[in-house]
Amino acid sequence: MAIHVLPLPGIPDVRPGDDLARILARAISESRVGVKTGDVLVVCQKVVSKAEGRVVDLATVEPSPFAIAWASEHEKDARLIELVLRESKRIVRMDRGNLIVETGPGWICANAGIDQSNALAPGVVTLLPADPDDSAARLRRELRGHLGVDLGIVVTDTFGRPWREGQVEFALGVAGIEPLDDLRGQRDRAGHELGVTVIATADQIACAAGLLMGKADGIPAVLVRGLTLPEASSDRATGRALIRPAENDLFR
Amino acid sequence: MAIHVLPLPGIPDVRPGDDLARILARAISESRVGVKTGDVLVVCQKVVSKAEGRVVDLATVEPSPFAIAWASEHEKDARLIELVLRESKRIVRMDRGNLIVETGPGWICANAGIDQSNALAPGVVTLLPADPDDSAARLRRELRGHLGVDLGIVVTDTFGRPWREGQVEFALGVAGIEPLDDLRGQRDRAGHELGVTVIATADQIACAAGLLMGKADGIPAVLVRGLTLPEASSDRATGRALIRPAENDLFR
Repeated sequence: MAIHVLPLPGIPDVRPGDDLARILARAISESRVGVKTGDVLVVCQKVVSKAEGRVVDLATVEPSPFAIAWASEHEKDARLIELVLRESKRIVRMDRGNLIVETGPGWICANAGIDQSNALAPGVVTLLPADPDDSAARLRRELRGHLGVDLGIVVTDTFGRPWREGQVEFALGVAGIEPLDDLRGQRDRAGHELGVTVIATADQIACAAGLLMGKADGIPAVLVRGLTLPEASSDRATGRALIRPAENDLFR
Repeated sequence: MAIHVLPLPGIPDVRPGDDLARILARAISESRVGVKTGDVLVVCQKVVSKAEGRVVDLATVEPSPFAIAWASEHEKDARLIELVLRESKRIVRMDRGNLIVETGPGWICANAGIDQSNALAPGVVTLLPADPDDSAARLRRELRGHLGVDLGIVVTDTFGRPWREGQVEFALGVAGIEPLDDLRGQRDRAGHELGVTVIATADQIACAAGLLMGKADGIPAVLVRGLTLPEASSDRATGRALIRPAENDLFR
């Protein structure tokens, strides 16, 4: 019952319009690790965004006076700040040069997840996928066609956390697995009921994958093998189910 | 360059005063996976706390009027609330029956990390280790004696997160590895400098281990193999280095 995190090397740079499922299927087929039922494919957001054309050339962005003023004060690119504001539905913190926002779909992260690294060209940035759950479901469907196997899919991005140094991977989009493992009602070895324990399995899978998907290494996808997960059985088997509703959140 | 998360089955219930290093060394020796240089041993906080005697019988706790009043309002055990307050140096949120505190050593978590599950006996709870970095360093030293190998050590606990549903493992104590992988100054494949990227490797290792250390399963320790980490080279190679200093934190 060991778990294995298996890299998929040799994935080329992805460009808008590329058939990402085909690219991933080829990488899986050509890798020595193959593919097995129960494997979870973890894909970093950036290649998903690129394939889906979620890229913006900053030269095309006209910043608002608000973006210009704040960017100037904190030595940021006003066009990038403008894009962050456009991708946001609410600003959670705007403090000491940091811009932590709630994006349209509901992720709370710095700069709305907009990223300048590993972009297609200088001045071109990637946005988060418009609907990472839809991206994950589509990859799952198309990879079944290519490989004949139903994979779990997790689309991830790298975010910071309150109170903690450093960034880790988070699950944005999920397909084919339950993202949360609800242990409530189960009993521990001493017979004590596990009161409030719900494990964010998909986030832990994302972090395990993150150990190989280092930013500079160019490994945008890995397989996680050996997980014993209940198959997705509900319409809550999404990455969106990992977003805590505002009414239950003490930190918005 | 795959990463493997290897369970260590057969670890007995740990009791105060037990020689945890000896217990872990035996579990490693008797497992089929053996041990290799570069392996990181991940141990859940609870067995560390138990071995170190960080357990309290609630029957011995005299709750203050403040603890009694708040517990009564939210249908909690006043003795548990009293213990939480004693383990805290600051209350971060006290809202809707939740008590999120900053512990003496600096972790921000619900109920000061005090846990009623998998305890020694009904009414007995475990506190966090007094100094998990010290616990980790001692385990590393003693396991070197038993096994002749220098392991990385990560002592973890399961915490919730702002904005996210579910809990994941976090690194509390670290020895022998750098907990943060600082990529600043490195360049991505497009030559763009990775501006603010510091990866919280130890937290990602904790999460990878958490995929096997499910609360009900009684697997309190796992080996993570295949990581390519720089060896610990600084006095910041601690779990405490993962705590963001208050002056840089937007969410206290």
